[in-house]
Amino acid sequence: MKAVVYQGEHEVAVEEVDEPKIENPNDAVIDITTTAICGSDLHMYEGRTDADPGIVFGHENMGIVEEVGDGVTTLSEGDRIVLPFNVACGFCRNCEAGYTGFCINVNKTGSVPAGGAYGYVGMGPYQGGQAEKLRVPFADFNALQLPEGDEHENSFALLADIFPTGWHGTRLADLQPGESVVVFGAGPVGLMAAYSAKLQGAAEIYSVDRVPSRLDLASEYCDATPINFEEGDPAEQVRNAHGGEVDKGVDAVGYQAIDPATEAQDKDEYSPARENPAVVLNQLIDTVRPTGRLGIVGLYVPSDPGAPDEMSAAGRLGIDFGKLFEKGQRLGTGQCDVKRYNRRLRDMIIEGRADPSFLVSHRVNIEDAPEMYEAFDNREEGVTKVLLEP
Amino acid sequence: MKAVVYQGEHEVAVEEVDEPKIENPNDAVIDITTTAICGSDLHMYEGRTDADPGIVFGHENMGIVEEVGDGVTTLSEGDRIVLPFNVACGFCRNCEAGYTGFCINVNKTGSVPAGGAYGYVGMGPYQGGQAEKLRVPFADFNALQLPEGDEHENSFALLADIFPTGWHGTRLADLQPGESVVVFGAGPVGLMAAYSAKLQGAAEIYSVDRVPSRLDLASEYCDATPINFEEGDPAEQVRNAHGGEVDKGVDAVGYQAIDPATEAQDKDEYSPARENPAVVLNQLIDTVRPTGRLGIVGLYVPSDPGAPDEMSAAGRLGIDFGKLFEKGQRLGTGQCDVKRYNRRLRDMIIEGRADPSFLVSHRVNIEDAPEMYEAFDNREEGVTKVLLEP
Amino acid sequence: MKAVVYQGEHEVAVEEVDEPKIENPNDAVIDITTTAICGSDLHMYEGRTDADPGIVFGHENMGIVEEVGDGVTTLSEGDRIVLPFNVACGFCRNCEAGYTGFCINVNKTGSVPAGGAYGYVGMGPYQGGQAEKLRVPFADFNALQLPEGDEHENSFALLADIFPTGWHGTRLADLQPGESVVVFGAGPVGLMAAYSAKLQGAAEIYSVDRVPSRLDLASEYCDATPINFEEGDPAEQVRNAHGGEVDKGVDAVGYQAIDPATEAQDKDEYSPARENPAVVLNQLIDTVRPTGRLGIVGLYVPSDPGAPDEMSAAGRLGIDFGKLFEKGQRLGTGQCDVKRYNRRLRDMIIEGRADPSFLVSHRVNIEDAPEMYEAFDNREEGVTKVLLEP
Amino acid sequence: MKAVVYQGEHEVAVEEVDEPKIENPNDAVIDITTTAICGSDLHMYEGRTDADPGIVFGHENMGIVEEVGDGVTTLSEGDRIVLPFNVACGFCRNCEAGYTGFCINVNKTGSVPAGGAYGYVGMGPYQGGQAEKLRVPFADFNALQLPEGDEHENSFALLADIFPTGWHGTRLADLQPGESVVVFGAGPVGLMAAYSAKLQGAAEIYSVDRVPSRLDLASEYCDATPINFEEGDPAEQVRNAHGGEVDKGVDAVGYQAIDPATEAQDKDEYSPARENPAVVLNQLIDTVRPTGRLGIVGLYVPSDPGAPDEMSAAGRLGIDFGKLFEKGQRLGTGQCDVKRYNRRLRDMIIEGRADPSFLVSHRVNIEDAPEMYEAFDNREEGVTKVLLEP
Repeated sequence: MKAVVYQGEHEVAVEEVDEPKIENPNDAVIDITTTAICGSDLHMYEGRTDADPGIVFGHENMGIVEEVGDGVTTLSEGDRIVLPFNVACGFCRNCEAGYTGFCINVNKTGSVPAGGAYGYVGMGPYQGGQAEKLRVPFADFNALQLPEGDEHENSFALLADIFPTGWHGTRLADLQPGESVVVFGAGPVGLMAAYSAKLQGAAEIYSVDRVPSRLDLASEYCDATPINFEEGDPAEQVRNAHGGEVDKGVDAVGYQAIDPATEAQDKDEYSPARENPAVVLNQLIDTVRPTGRLGIVGLYVPSDPGAPDEMSAAGRLGIDFGKLFEKGQRLGTGQCDVKRYNRRLRDMIIEGRADPSFLVSHRVNIEDAPEMYEAFDNREEGVTKVLLEP
Repeated sequence: MKAVVYQGEHEVAVEEVDEPKIENPNDAVIDITTTAICGSDLHMYEGRTDADPGIVFGHENMGIVEEVGDGVTTLSEGDRIVLPFNVACGFCRNCEAGYTGFCINVNKTGSVPAGGAYGYVGMGPYQGGQAEKLRVPFADFNALQLPEGDEHENSFALLADIFPTGWHGTRLADLQPGESVVVFGAGPVGLMAAYSAKLQGAAEIYSVDRVPSRLDLASEYCDATPINFEEGDPAEQVRNAHGGEVDKGVDAVGYQAIDPATEAQDKDEYSPARENPAVVLNQLIDTVRPTGRLGIVGLYVPSDPGAPDEMSAAGRLGIDFGKLFEKGQRLGTGQCDVKRYNRRLRDMIIEGRADPSFLVSHRVNIEDAPEMYEAFDNREEGVTKVLLEP
Repeated sequence: MKAVVYQGEHEVAVEEVDEPKIENPNDAVIDITTTAICGSDLHMYEGRTDADPGIVFGHENMGIVEEVGDGVTTLSEGDRIVLPFNVACGFCRNCEAGYTGFCINVNKTGSVPAGGAYGYVGMGPYQGGQAEKLRVPFADFNALQLPEGDEHENSFALLADIFPTGWHGTRLADLQPGESVVVFGAGPVGLMAAYSAKLQGAAEIYSVDRVPSRLDLASEYCDATPINFEEGDPAEQVRNAHGGEVDKGVDAVGYQAIDPATEAQDKDEYSPARENPAVVLNQLIDTVRPTGRLGIVGLYVPSDPGAPDEMSAAGRLGIDFGKLFEKGQRLGTGQCDVKRYNRRLRDMIIEGRADPSFLVSHRVNIEDAPEMYEAFDNREEGVTKVLLEP
Repeated sequence: MKAVVYQGEHEVAVEEVDEPKIENPNDAVIDITTTAICGSDLHMYEGRTDADPGIVFGHENMGIVEEVGDGVTTLSEGDRIVLPFNVACGFCRNCEAGYTGFCINVNKTGSVPAGGAYGYVGMGPYQGGQAEKLRVPFADFNALQLPEGDEHENSFALLADIFPTGWHGTRLADLQPGESVVVFGAGPVGLMAAYSAKLQGAAEIYSVDRVPSRLDLASEYCDATPINFEEGDPAEQVRNAHGGEVDKGVDAVGYQAIDPATEAQDKDEYSPARENPAVVLNQLIDTVRPTGRLGIVGLYVPSDPGAPDEMSAAGRLGIDFGKLFEKGQRLGTGQCDVKRYNRRLRDMIIEGRADPSFLVSHRVNIEDAPEMYEAFDNREEGVTKVLLEP
């Protein structure tokens, strides 16, 4: 079958690979109908991870069940399902408490038993879904059933990762209806966080980014007030617009954050030289009021070879902890436990209460994957979210 | 009346000052029966704050109501009460949500409206209670009624701050019965946190400190496993004893933490040269398992003139945020909202379910305050908690 | 000043009464700008309570501060405020836990210390606000500040009771975004509950009533599926429409529920002969799925002289508890603690996220109160919610 | 193999039956080391259910893994495990939300998909464990691992049902440390509820029963104040002892409650003529304060042929709902989701923080089961909890 295979720094190719098959009685094999390129795939694509060539990418996957193992009881051939990017067993201590992003059975080799994922370095031995077929472990647990047909295909595809991850940011911040919230980052996750805030009844949403087209989406679809951090300290801009600090905050940026204090040579160009891995965390602390809470879903890593200094290369960041403490803030971090949210978000989509598909800028044949990786990696204007179909 | 008055670095004196009187219809004036010296008083005593000479110290206060204002409806002369160290209004946005440590009406001058307190620099214009009498603002809200008489006097006195603050650490960590927990620090707050963990049904408690007599108290009264960090990396010691990372953790140390990696000249001497303000935070992250939670009640400050380096002087600490994120940990910080807990802790004391008075090493006449400040500041062995009676 | 005074069964009059004045340092006196007639006023109006003639009605009040007592610190003359229908002290055990509807200081005479209210029998000695002026006890605690001017006057007026009460129904049911919910009753509270469900992101909302114009409002403003219980068992209708039992349920009807199983002589007429005080509770149990939760904000009383049988006259109802238990359902009851919600609902109104004013059918001069009471009591078509201005 | 087989009303026999075997790749088969007789077995034993002769009883089971299916990944031959009485799949909507007592995949035939259990009528096709061996479906999910050896065997056996069920009562009541609680019933579940309250730091515990030896256990092991309801209205006795209503309450009695208002012919004899299925519910409502919460773990059934009247025969009970509402109480019901608690309770046992084995009055060979059923059914003094070993 065809699959998107990592070739090395800045290169993927569509190649023939072996078809997956049932390896355990709890497995299913599905025919992929939609799979997506994720911003986190770019970390591997750019060669900033330990990923070896040969990996099949793809952790945002949906499709039709082709075959199930003897132990699978609720799935049958022909069922339409979407899969959390997390691979999880369903019965370990963490899974049973709902922390399916931290399953301790599916990935025994990581620096931390940080859960598993499809097609991702360090996340266990699971092939990715940017391919014609995919093997699904613990299929009864991991599959989310969808209505037959092809309605809402783009929205449902976003249930694999990006919509629940944005939602997770608001939940880690314990956002309540009627509160004000700032979301740093208006990339796919940030937009989904702002959209989630809207769906949950936030009174005011501030969306911080530097790319005007993203801020336009935040404004149009998420009822957010756009804050362009190239135009001044974002914390100050938010305080001025809101009349003080906001109730809650979400970090949808992570460690590759751009420091507004650095000079942009050309504001249209992304430049690693402007990175400051703690800048968004400290802006959050500054923007959110005492007793407020911070949801951190932007990625932070314990080891970053490309970091601007030695301390942050080891994942140690200079954080305004004195101010955080004085404000009595609380924060939550970590990758999303998709199963916590995907069932209800699916129902919101089915009933027309949510339609996150505004995020999808491209839906192309999987053969076009190499070209789309390049465009996405170049952060080309208008390339917000790319879906592939095999 | 007599009061303990700050004279300047390392000096307090018992002096005559004006008696407080009713200034607002919601005030009460009480006769102090017990007041305590707190570790945080030492920050002022040592001259490491902006406190000007002339301040009357004392934020852990209890006594008998002498007089009430016209607006006070539930207190009468002769009532025995204990006061949270927080001064709070009871009706601002934060108070009504239970965040009485962050009242926005009682202290408009701080760098953050971080709530008020008696006798503390930067916490509003409230005289301290290390004196014969004390004025209590918003008395209906701030007073906690106690049974008549003098039973449990020492235990009740600890309801002003230290017992609820220790308890708060475990709540910020969302400790559940049957879980394992590490408490860094076995000073008064740390011991109260470990004791709180025991009362809440923790399965395993690890208490980390360097002072053997404190670790003995942790072991004897809190059923804690003592971990002496001078004997090796505490995270590793806890993991070895427990068989892996623990579920939850409490930081009862704060920014004046000693780094075990530094060499002790003489282990009996406390030396600022060994300080590393982020060391306990990073040990916590290391000791607690993925999905675990951290309760930070040890003090962190946005500005510390005595800090070992420029970054931490501005309250910016080098925190292992990459590891924290990878583990999906959550943390809560800030001073305790005493009213969240003091009513139920009082009832536990009355019914004999809790007896925190094991912590009290000295109960002396207020005239002895200067001498006790000196002994406490010298961290003399056996000076755990000092109560004063006027 | 003019006030709406209860004269006896089915009669109110606008009379001159003494103006209220500051009685306690924590009081304020306000000029009423808007006050509302509530469905619960009709219980007194119809003579089905112990209310004696002479009571000034009105517990849904807003206005402008005219004068404050010496103890009041955050209100000044000219401030625009809305008051919860609850009168609460702010510092008793229940208030400090957020149960301001169950304040134990403001009403010592009731069968239960069930909190206080303005202008209501058995709810303490507080005159109502259907008048030119109103005395507000514990004014700092009870007042919610509003923006200057007269914008959103109708919506803000609903913050006194009906909007928070509807919202409370959904919170007692622990409604989550993406869930399905049934709301029994499409009167003012039921419509506010359905509207609250929409604002919180419910995936599906079913609104059950017998009055087509109410069901139309539910459909138009709350995105609810209307269920007319005169057309068949509502539990069965909901299950058929939803494809099974729903996740959560709200009872916004209470003990004067009409039993669909009884024959309507004339479906346009309301007839007490069709009452069955437990019918909605049992329909709820039937309609909601196992593990679901029920929010009961419709009124149930411990004594009802007009009840259909002796048992229910004593507030004892025949409830399908065996089925409830088998389903493992949970339920919450009681009058709303308005302060739990009114601040955030206000902010949703200010920011244009919520506009509950669709409910207001009439806004008239207080002189027209007698006529409007009659129309409202006759359940005249189109008389949904009546606001009075003095 | 030998098994305890139901013969018909008041008769069980130890017979030879076929050994269970692996039927599905997720099954395990275990050698039973301990199994218990539960009070709910008596419902079948007494012929008050639809149970047909031939059923093998036993839903409180522990043992050693003998064999596992191909899909089982975390269990191996020789592992010592204890099983929740619930049979659950681990991946349905209810299981994934933690409601493993309401699994919708394991029991499709009940009146409600009320979860499954071993050896119980209407709870699915699962043979009981009062036998030499037991088949365990979804073994990875349902098994709780125990330390090797035979330490704590009696305490661990209670993790199958009775200890978690008592604990569940306190959680449904949302009991907090420092609160007061009443537990109706001092049978096995009631004692475990009172013991759980103690472990969680309740300030005061009232235990209500009529059997002095049970009340003695409550007093001795649970620090509870005993209340004998034969000596007067229990609600009044509790209020007198406590000085008012208590904070929280647990019903560990259920529908076969004895009404203290009925005359005991002979207080040592249990008589169905004294039953009143709603009496404990109404006592709870009466005993618990406004805003309090009720945890109902005593069994209520939708159909009871032996009920005292027609209404309650259909599971409809006369409940003081008017008073409940006026008090704003909340309640939770239903059988326990054992997996919510068993892991942490196990750890409390291992660490010596909990020792529920005081409950076990008999540990006998399975051959003695018929005799023990008879003694237990006769409520013989001193027969508190019977464990069987094959």
